[in-house]
Amino acid sequence: MTSINRQWLLAKRPLGHVTEECFELAESEIPELQDGQILIQNHYLAFEPAMRGWIDDAPNYLPPVQIGEVMRASAAGEIIQSRHPDYEVGDRVSGLFGWQEYTVLTPGGLQSATKVPEGLELTAPLSILGMTSVTAYFGLLDVGEPKAGETVVVTGAAGATGSVAAQIARIKGCRVIGVAGGPEKCTWLREEAKLDAVIDYKNENLMDRLGELCPDGIDVAFENVGGEQLDAILFHIANHARISLCGAISAYNDLEPEPKLRYVGHLIKRRVRMQGFIILDYLGRAQEALSDLADWASAGEIAYRVDVQEGIANVPKTFLRLFAGKNQGKQLLKLV
Amino acid sequence: MTSINRQWLLAKRPLGHVTEECFELAESEIPELQDGQILIQNHYLAFEPAMRGWIDDAPNYLPPVQIGEVMRASAAGEIIQSRHPDYEVGDRVSGLFGWQEYTVLTPGGLQSATKVPEGLELTAPLSILGMTSVTAYFGLLDVGEPKAGETVVVTGAAGATGSVAAQIARIKGCRVIGVAGGPEKCTWLREEAKLDAVIDYKNENLMDRLGELCPDGIDVAFENVGGEQLDAILFHIANHARISLCGAISAYNDLEPEPKLRYVGHLIKRRVRMQGFIILDYLGRAQEALSDLADWASAGEIAYRVDVQEGIANVPKTFLRLFAGKNQGKQLLKLV
Repeated sequence: MTSINRQWLLAKRPLGHVTEECFELAESEIPELQDGQILIQNHYLAFEPAMRGWIDDAPNYLPPVQIGEVMRASAAGEIIQSRHPDYEVGDRVSGLFGWQEYTVLTPGGLQSATKVPEGLELTAPLSILGMTSVTAYFGLLDVGEPKAGETVVVTGAAGATGSVAAQIARIKGCRVIGVAGGPEKCTWLREEAKLDAVIDYKNENLMDRLGELCPDGIDVAFENVGGEQLDAILFHIANHARISLCGAISAYNDLEPEPKLRYVGHLIKRRVRMQGFIILDYLGRAQEALSDLADWASAGEIAYRVDVQEGIANVPKTFLRLFAGKNQGKQLLKLV
Repeated sequence: MTSINRQWLLAKRPLGHVTEECFELAESEIPELQDGQILIQNHYLAFEPAMRGWIDDAPNYLPPVQIGEVMRASAAGEIIQSRHPDYEVGDRVSGLFGWQEYTVLTPGGLQSATKVPEGLELTAPLSILGMTSVTAYFGLLDVGEPKAGETVVVTGAAGATGSVAAQIARIKGCRVIGVAGGPEKCTWLREEAKLDAVIDYKNENLMDRLGELCPDGIDVAFENVGGEQLDAILFHIANHARISLCGAISAYNDLEPEPKLRYVGHLIKRRVRMQGFIILDYLGRAQEALSDLADWASAGEIAYRVDVQEGIANVPKTFLRLFAGKNQGKQLLKLV
């Protein structure tokens, strides 16, 4: 086995748009394990829009990644050395292992290494049984509180979180409209995810189409995009609606926050609840979500897909795919 | 008794700012009462920011006032003729009697005439025991859910609704910061309403002062103003906070809705609930609020004041005082 670990470090903070130059590839020796530590060989890295927030030097729900540190990221791999009584060589684990080939970890807290149950693919905890799905579950059901028969709109509907949220709404008996960019994503949402309707915001007028498809307004929105898409939802929101704010990918690369919403006033007239959430607050209940998700996935009720890029050299490039809307499903990268 | 009724009609819809020219004074004969009707002589009219929304030709929680119709408004007066079995001449009543000297009414629904209990001043149902106080009660307690020890910020704090919301928060054991315009209002809030701190947004930098006064963030906001004031609250909002959206007086005269909020993204990072409400949804529970409010008012725990203008000729001018921030307390006008 090599003793060299290739790692992507945060080289500088982005000014607005994140670029490949924000990261640099470094090599380091893998250190000797101390008591209580494990050494993981990472097989897959996962990429999520929320990671953009982790590299700004600003208060966030997790501390900012510091310049010179390995970029924080979810990953899954196999334990190749262990000096921890609860972990053995050969155990498959997932956690925040970072953009690197090998991770030395003292399990505990954010440094957790969760074992991947037998029979599951190593990509499962990074995709359908990963944090994005748990996020979709609680963000839709607990924050959005959809009721059967209601009209639910999901933006970023072809993404890892949005696609699961939209399908949970469908399973719960709602009429679901997905918003995504481009015909390929829209076809997948219509044919595989079996949504009731899909809007291609790149080729259709979102404001007009929402009006046509939701003549009685939107009862629940699961919102990943922010900006104009959130504003179109506010315009067409129904009385007593709930807007679950999961993310705002359209704004993550803004240098200065820009005022973009014209129809916030509808929150008052139409008595709407708009609520943000962070999945960290639900981690104690993750098992609830994972149990339902596993059932639905094995029964074929939730379609999902992963977009697997390859090679440690392509890590920053793969991250940028998210902001260009290029990923088709959950964005992963295979290392070995 | 005269048989002439002077009435202010909606003459044209405002384009942006409401002006006196939007209304015209008309005279009409008081009609003979039909069975089931009552004739009220109005003594006081009440003025509220929400009335601005009633004269736009746009969907709202009440139907728009039509051109040529008497302007809708709360009022209180005395019954001077009755052909309804439940009402007698001399009964004092309040309701949506409109901008006119006399009101002919068939009680029922929105046309209700609520009797003013003996011992109460005729202005009470238009001020401390009026809809603005009931609005403050449910908007703060049900939507904002303040807990003792939390930091509560109220904008429009010297207004009829804001001043009551701020004092209910104080009664519930919160630390309360009021935001109002000008030294006179701020002195009243500090000395009579006994808030913990007051910010004069016309003479102080709201963004900076909120940061100084709320170093751990704002737990609950009761928001009447919108625009920059709401944005400053969003900037300083605490984790898991609640923003109760009661109104947005800063935007009511905007011709086109303007995007003004830069920090909506904090709703996500800080898991905040921002919720609008309309008092109509709470009318079935109004008695709960009125009972507590009457107790607090008679115990001297809630300070309130009315700003009483006079004369039917001054009605539109008095309405405009609200948007210039001139009213000192609940804006009323005395007719007789």
